[in-house]
Amino acid sequence: MPKKPRRSGEFQIIARYFAPLARGAAPALGLTDDVALIAPTPGTELVVKTDAVVESVHFLAGDPPELVARKALRVNVSDLAANGARPRWYLLDAILPRRIDDRWIAAFARGLAKDQAEFGIALIGGDMSSTPGPLTLAITVLGEVPRGKMPRRSGARPGDEIYVSGTIGDGALGLLVATGKLKFADRRHAGFLLDRYRLPQPRVALGGYLLGFASAALDVSDGLIADLGHICESSRLGATIELARVPLSPAAAAVLARKPALLERVLTGGDDYEILFTVSAEARSRVAALARRLELRLTRIGHMHGGRGVGLIDAAGRRRTMARGGWTHF
Amino acid sequence: MPKKPRRSGEFQIIARYFAPLARGAAPALGLTDDVALIAPTPGTELVVKTDAVVESVHFLAGDPPELVARKALRVNVSDLAANGARPRWYLLDAILPRRIDDRWIAAFARGLAKDQAEFGIALIGGDMSSTPGPLTLAITVLGEVPRGKMPRRSGARPGDEIYVSGTIGDGALGLLVATGKLKFADRRHAGFLLDRYRLPQPRVALGGYLLGFASAALDVSDGLIADLGHICESSRLGATIELARVPLSPAAAAVLARKPALLERVLTGGDDYEILFTVSAEARSRVAALARRLELRLTRIGHMHGGRGVGLIDAAGRRRTMARGGWTHF
Repeated sequence: MPKKPRRSGEFQIIARYFAPLARGAAPALGLTDDVALIAPTPGTELVVKTDAVVESVHFLAGDPPELVARKALRVNVSDLAANGARPRWYLLDAILPRRIDDRWIAAFARGLAKDQAEFGIALIGGDMSSTPGPLTLAITVLGEVPRGKMPRRSGARPGDEIYVSGTIGDGALGLLVATGKLKFADRRHAGFLLDRYRLPQPRVALGGYLLGFASAALDVSDGLIADLGHICESSRLGATIELARVPLSPAAAAVLARKPALLERVLTGGDDYEILFTVSAEARSRVAALARRLELRLTRIGHMHGGRGVGLIDAAGRRRTMARGGWTHF
Repeated sequence: MPKKPRRSGEFQIIARYFAPLARGAAPALGLTDDVALIAPTPGTELVVKTDAVVESVHFLAGDPPELVARKALRVNVSDLAANGARPRWYLLDAILPRRIDDRWIAAFARGLAKDQAEFGIALIGGDMSSTPGPLTLAITVLGEVPRGKMPRRSGARPGDEIYVSGTIGDGALGLLVATGKLKFADRRHAGFLLDRYRLPQPRVALGGYLLGFASAALDVSDGLIADLGHICESSRLGATIELARVPLSPAAAAVLARKPALLERVLTGGDDYEILFTVSAEARSRVAALARRLELRLTRIGHMHGGRGVGLIDAAGRRRTMARGGWTHF
């Protein structure tokens, strides 16, 4: 006989599962006040980002609660990283359907605890609500950046070279694996892509080095083309990407070898959470040194110029166009 | 023939309806970056509060979008007010079902604009998502308070007197009106209670005066008894409320005259968004002067003592007990 889901009251849940996540974080006030109180570090500015994830839209109903927690946190941490901020604190609005029981919440909190340790952040406030709809998590992350140093997406200049960290397209292909739409990848590749979809890796260490170095930076969440388009628009410039340079994982390369049409998905699918940044052409050796230091792939994929929009050039030097500009949420 | 709901794309909606709400707010970076960047005012600390509202849980499906917007903002602003903070900025996660069209969003944004003007705050960031479930809004509000001055709910002392602003129970009775469960109130009274439910009035002006004056303060959102219980627990004290002193609006008084059993609802229903605060017994004349200055009712309803929990005393001096301790969200 299936057991009835057991869910403690709001204050018990906060005391049992969430208060431990706030331990030692002064701004949390022990989660006993309704507000958090932040004493900003002198000489810094606060970088704030909020993002919500919705079951069946941003993650799947059966996804393990630990991974749901970590992804919800990471999509926000990724934005701070791309802006060179040191992640410090977060607030969580947990909007829970009735079927969510203590067991689910305990696993969810374990996921948060893991990532708190990984990124050096702590829970400082939040809210719990019930909903007749899907599980929804809204997270607001706060970080600190030295005053006046945050790279802006409007800062790219003509001639700047465009770099991206890690590899592109794994998250978007991982979603196809998760939804059963990409079955022919071999098991290791499928597992790799699924992991990249479920647990993105915010490039926090890289972000700090980009301060006062990158002319523009952001994290790739809407898709490489769309996000580069944001830099173009804010900087009032155009960009050209050399398709052959876009860094692919062995798994993504294997998928594309079998089904080249998925290149569009790779470039526009989003969910990469890599950092896309521009630097002056003189800085090539400095970028290379940084990549070695961080043991992180940093790939030059194109350059900024005085035009408009994002252009693509294939291996043969031909201009390519693309139907979709990337994922928007409607 | 009913028209199909028309909904613009995410970036169009942001540009058309939300970017104007960020105009002039430096931390918003024009809503063109993914993050907000706050340069804290020297000598202040940041007070941060987040709260989510869900359709059919916190507001009703047919509620006017302007009022939904303003209430979602106000429940957060109210917390800052009770903590003596000057509200400055907010972030909005708008999680929208497909039926929400441009017309709805335009009205919603007008509501936000009205309250931005009223409370001196601005939108500095946010996120839009779609959902197969109910309309859900998560708002994070940030305010500033002079360093070290924020009243804490743990600061009450034995002998302190307990005050509450405005009147209690209107919001809870207004919800009964809105859901058709309270039909016998006369039309003016019904309208007043409904307004109080739909559009609470955060006591921002009062909050500033409580700095360095109130020993503890919070806003009444879970219900008078439950929220006073929070002060008791954090301050490790007990409290006694004199029921005859609890301030009622003429509308609430008329309802209770007909149906005295609703007193429990008045005391525990929540949704009051008045400020509950404790001050030393020597400060009575100062509180009275403050009430005159603000033209705001500030009513002494009881006192703190060395016991535990919240006790109630009726007009005849008898102890009363109550079945429910107040609204928790499950």
